[in-house]
Amino acid sequence: MKGVVYHGPEDFKVEEVPDPGLLLEGDALLRVTRTAICGTDLHFWHGEPLPITGFTLGHEFMGIVEDAGSGVQRFRKGDRVLSSCTIGCGTCGMCSRGLYGGCSETTRIAGPLTNVFGNPVLPGGQAEAVRVPFADTNLFRVPEALTDEQALFLTDILPTGYMGADLAEVSPGDVVVVFGCGPVGVFAQRCAALFGAAAVVAVDLDDQRLERARARGCVTVNPESGNLLETVQGLTDGRGADAIIEAVGRSELVLSAIEVARPGARIAVMGVISDEPLELPYMQGMFAKSLTVRSGVVTPQTYIPRLLPLVEQGRLDPTEIITHRLPLDDAIDGYRTFASHSDNVLKVVLEP
Amino acid sequence: MKGVVYHGPEDFKVEEVPDPGLLLEGDALLRVTRTAICGTDLHFWHGEPLPITGFTLGHEFMGIVEDAGSGVQRFRKGDRVLSSCTIGCGTCGMCSRGLYGGCSETTRIAGPLTNVFGNPVLPGGQAEAVRVPFADTNLFRVPEALTDEQALFLTDILPTGYMGADLAEVSPGDVVVVFGCGPVGVFAQRCAALFGAAAVVAVDLDDQRLERARARGCVTVNPESGNLLETVQGLTDGRGADAIIEAVGRSELVLSAIEVARPGARIAVMGVISDEPLELPYMQGMFAKSLTVRSGVVTPQTYIPRLLPLVEQGRLDPTEIITHRLPLDDAIDGYRTFASHSDNVLKVVLEP
Amino acid sequence: MKGVVYHGPEDFKVEEVPDPGLLLEGDALLRVTRTAICGTDLHFWHGEPLPITGFTLGHEFMGIVEDAGSGVQRFRKGDRVLSSCTIGCGTCGMCSRGLYGGCSETTRIAGPLTNVFGNPVLPGGQAEAVRVPFADTNLFRVPEALTDEQALFLTDILPTGYMGADLAEVSPGDVVVVFGCGPVGVFAQRCAALFGAAAVVAVDLDDQRLERARARGCVTVNPESGNLLETVQGLTDGRGADAIIEAVGRSELVLSAIEVARPGARIAVMGVISDEPLELPYMQGMFAKSLTVRSGVVTPQTYIPRLLPLVEQGRLDPTEIITHRLPLDDAIDGYRTFASHSDNVLKVVLEP
Amino acid sequence: MKGVVYHGPEDFKVEEVPDPGLLLEGDALLRVTRTAICGTDLHFWHGEPLPITGFTLGHEFMGIVEDAGSGVQRFRKGDRVLSSCTIGCGTCGMCSRGLYGGCSETTRIAGPLTNVFGNPVLPGGQAEAVRVPFADTNLFRVPEALTDEQALFLTDILPTGYMGADLAEVSPGDVVVVFGCGPVGVFAQRCAALFGAAAVVAVDLDDQRLERARARGCVTVNPESGNLLETVQGLTDGRGADAIIEAVGRSELVLSAIEVARPGARIAVMGVISDEPLELPYMQGMFAKSLTVRSGVVTPQTYIPRLLPLVEQGRLDPTEIITHRLPLDDAIDGYRTFASHSDNVLKVVLEP
Repeated sequence: MKGVVYHGPEDFKVEEVPDPGLLLEGDALLRVTRTAICGTDLHFWHGEPLPITGFTLGHEFMGIVEDAGSGVQRFRKGDRVLSSCTIGCGTCGMCSRGLYGGCSETTRIAGPLTNVFGNPVLPGGQAEAVRVPFADTNLFRVPEALTDEQALFLTDILPTGYMGADLAEVSPGDVVVVFGCGPVGVFAQRCAALFGAAAVVAVDLDDQRLERARARGCVTVNPESGNLLETVQGLTDGRGADAIIEAVGRSELVLSAIEVARPGARIAVMGVISDEPLELPYMQGMFAKSLTVRSGVVTPQTYIPRLLPLVEQGRLDPTEIITHRLPLDDAIDGYRTFASHSDNVLKVVLEP
Repeated sequence: MKGVVYHGPEDFKVEEVPDPGLLLEGDALLRVTRTAICGTDLHFWHGEPLPITGFTLGHEFMGIVEDAGSGVQRFRKGDRVLSSCTIGCGTCGMCSRGLYGGCSETTRIAGPLTNVFGNPVLPGGQAEAVRVPFADTNLFRVPEALTDEQALFLTDILPTGYMGADLAEVSPGDVVVVFGCGPVGVFAQRCAALFGAAAVVAVDLDDQRLERARARGCVTVNPESGNLLETVQGLTDGRGADAIIEAVGRSELVLSAIEVARPGARIAVMGVISDEPLELPYMQGMFAKSLTVRSGVVTPQTYIPRLLPLVEQGRLDPTEIITHRLPLDDAIDGYRTFASHSDNVLKVVLEP
Repeated sequence: MKGVVYHGPEDFKVEEVPDPGLLLEGDALLRVTRTAICGTDLHFWHGEPLPITGFTLGHEFMGIVEDAGSGVQRFRKGDRVLSSCTIGCGTCGMCSRGLYGGCSETTRIAGPLTNVFGNPVLPGGQAEAVRVPFADTNLFRVPEALTDEQALFLTDILPTGYMGADLAEVSPGDVVVVFGCGPVGVFAQRCAALFGAAAVVAVDLDDQRLERARARGCVTVNPESGNLLETVQGLTDGRGADAIIEAVGRSELVLSAIEVARPGARIAVMGVISDEPLELPYMQGMFAKSLTVRSGVVTPQTYIPRLLPLVEQGRLDPTEIITHRLPLDDAIDGYRTFASHSDNVLKVVLEP
Repeated sequence: MKGVVYHGPEDFKVEEVPDPGLLLEGDALLRVTRTAICGTDLHFWHGEPLPITGFTLGHEFMGIVEDAGSGVQRFRKGDRVLSSCTIGCGTCGMCSRGLYGGCSETTRIAGPLTNVFGNPVLPGGQAEAVRVPFADTNLFRVPEALTDEQALFLTDILPTGYMGADLAEVSPGDVVVVFGCGPVGVFAQRCAALFGAAAVVAVDLDDQRLERARARGCVTVNPESGNLLETVQGLTDGRGADAIIEAVGRSELVLSAIEVARPGARIAVMGVISDEPLELPYMQGMFAKSLTVRSGVVTPQTYIPRLLPLVEQGRLDPTEIITHRLPLDDAIDGYRTFASHSDNVLKVVLEP
């Protein structure tokens, strides 16, 4: 079968890869119907060469169950399902706390497993088929009423945006600042409104993205031409933002977040910070403002049961971010477009 | 000055009453600009004769500060303010827990105070002027951008609807049932959506009210012609409702709430139950379904700071419930219309 | 093998029953090392005849894994484990919310399963061996440092007592009332203290049990000779109890709970109420006091990971309630003693 | 009257200062009966010269009400009270959220107020008398059963230790690491146990302090001779600490906290960090471990109502930290002893 294979930075290829099979009792085998390129995949494209090569990419995917191990109790051949991007065993101490991203069993039980930071990996879902371990924990049935495109982003970035609002404890009446209008930023803005925000302030350098944010009901600020602090103070009677979600991945934005925060605010860092470490001012920041700073690996397993009815009932429309649809064979074109930020690209969907 | 005075059931009169003055250091005196008739006021209209008569009615009111005691630090003459319908001292053990409705100091310190169950009462706000004790705790400045009518219902029933969603712990993705489409029901439905409900099911016997509920985005059920349980099961894949808000005040509806509840659901009883006691099935209800049942006196002081920005930013429009506007002189007509449920009445506003 | 079999009220027999085997991929088979008689078992002893007979009793048990299905990932032959008394599939909508007692899959997938109210049942654990479905979800490894007796009550009644403190939201500084000094009451008192209660008031009619409660640090009240309301008011400066746990199972005690509750209090009904329905005063109770009432099926799966380290570190000693130890062959003597409340019985442990 | 006056680093003097009087309606005047030297006071002793001098030090104090403004409703002459170390107005947007340390009104209304970072200050309580603004919000009546010494530390450091456990969300069964065995560390350890910790690991470089921590039931680690990570892993089956409280004030300890944290852990920074900024590893720290980091100004007003019954009932004994008692006249000796860490000093109490 075909898959998108990593050979090094800017050196990905669509090529023949081995058909996956069942390895463990809890495995399911999916025929992939839709998969997407994530901003995290671009870290492999732009980043340092990884110590291993030749593995199949992709952690945002859905499909039809082709086969399931004898330990799988909730799924059977023919079920249309989406997969969580993080794989948890479902029963270890971390998974039972809902921290599937910190699963302590996957490496021991399942052998080579998803580790996006360069270690041996489970073959990914930018392919015609994929094996998913612990299927009962990591797969979710897609309701008939939903199209594939409506369901696809529940695998990763819609839960990531939702988790931003959750970690930032957005509450009704809050004024919320979201840094970034990329895919995660868009969903973080939507979820902040869903959690009852009185106002969502979208921050980006791209005026076209900000225009779309205004159409979504956001107040917008381009820091090159506007003043975020003044905007927030104007909305809050001088108090400062109640909750802030960083959805870009730059540590300086966490400093901006602290600057616009009111005392008692919560800051969720959802963008993957590329310039370590986070440097947090203490005396006039964390201490004087009584702040909470949180980050974390997304746990779609926790959020999908809440998100599915919201998409079904039309309160969220995940397809709004799709700008490009390509056959799997043209995946490398998709990577190039996404990597170059050209053609107003926001999200690329691949169809095997 | 004029006020609406209680002389007995169905015997209210607009008549001359003594001008209020300042009694305590923390008092403020308001010239009333808008006041409303609450469903709770109708309990006096319909109910048993109270042991005392001759007091001024009304606990939903707003106005302009005319005078303030020396202990008032946050308000001065000319401020446009709204008042909480419950009066708390702000510093006792209950108030410091946010339970202003259970204030342990008001009767001791302030003398005759609001007690809606027939004991000596603080003169109410259906009048040209009113004294508000502990003004720093119980008054809230109205932002310039809001009209009086936009602010008026923050005194009581908008917080009551919000408290319904809060006590029922409505969370994103929930399917929520709201019994009743009266003023509190409408706001409970709006707040359930604000808290992120995937779907809100409005239940009422009045098809015109249900039609308006559909226009608000609700699923609707008239129990005389439809089947609530089937509707809820259809929306939840058979699971049952996540949260239920009773906004009518009949104990049989709490039984219906338990019937449609999923395991782990929360039930908020916001309607003032007129047929005591609540009879809750235990084995197949509270126990087998692991239910939470809550009620309580509304604490507008807790919710107003969250609600004001939501009204300012246009996420809630409290004026939607106003059906009748009358001068204070015609208040008794307003009571008669409200008591008889005629003329599609939902809410009567009085203008002194 | 031998097991305790139900033939009707007061008609239980220790007799030969079929050896259990593995039925499903997720099953484990245990050789039972310790099992206990629960107050819930007495409902069968005292109650109406059930429509079925001939099944093995017992839901509090632990043992050694003898065999495990191919779908079991966390356990293998020889592991010393304890079992949750409620069996959940671990992945359905209810289980994924932590509501294992409301599992929607067990009857569909696992066939005859534990249903304590008289329907077809999974053979129980008062036997030499027992089959446990969904072993990865329902079994827990016992740390080497713990004896069997230290671990046994984590199967049911220690989590039940803990859940009482959890549902009553006991918080540091609270004054907590616990009705009942039976096994669940003792653990509810211990857990209330563990959650930081300033004082725990134990209520019972048995002075010997109250004497032991005082030795545990409780304030005690025998309602026949003392005044609970005065005791609580004395401890709370007249405010009332912050949290109340009913651990007897009589609806009148829920009325007493409401009487001694402060505004904003939480009431957890953990005793299995035998006189339905609960009748709750509304106007002067639920409403005026802003109360929360909760009940529910215990979910040991949720609490065991927290309880194990507390027992290991010596903060809780579950063995304190054991008064009788008998071989399995003498189980009926144990039932008779427990049912007659003779011999200061608190808890009977059986050794197969 | 006499007071301890700041003239510069290491230049404090006990000297004559003006008698305080009432300035505002809400003020109360206290005759000080006990006051203490706080670690924060040492920042003035050791630190850079402040731009202003000549003010009276001290924010931990209690006393007898001598006089009260007309706006004070809860206190009168003769009441024995303790004061919160932070002064809030009680009604602004921040105070009504419980964030008294971020009060937005104090500087506007009350003129010169406590600001420990070098700006104009409200005269402090290391004196024979002191004025407390907003007395209804900031003073608390001391129960008769408590001695002055039992009550004194509720003004600041007992709430600070409690807030550490609160911000770190210590829950029953947690393994908690507390860095530091100074006064705040001791109380953080006590409160972690009070919140139900299975084990509290105390970390310090002073073996005598560690010996006392062992007597309090803590596991102890001196990083110069022991291995904290191994100790924590041994207690948690390799998982890592659930909650960590930094009670020293050095940013490197926050790094150690991240190192020993389990996925999903919460870190409360209660020590005043002297080496800005906090540098937090992101990819392997905040992100991969899904961490929460919090800090904040203590709000004794929030915690005192919970702490008073715990002290009254003997669950906490704040006097355990007192090592030195001196007359106010000898305050400078107390400062010297405390600053030099000599004589096993832990806490110095002054008696005016």
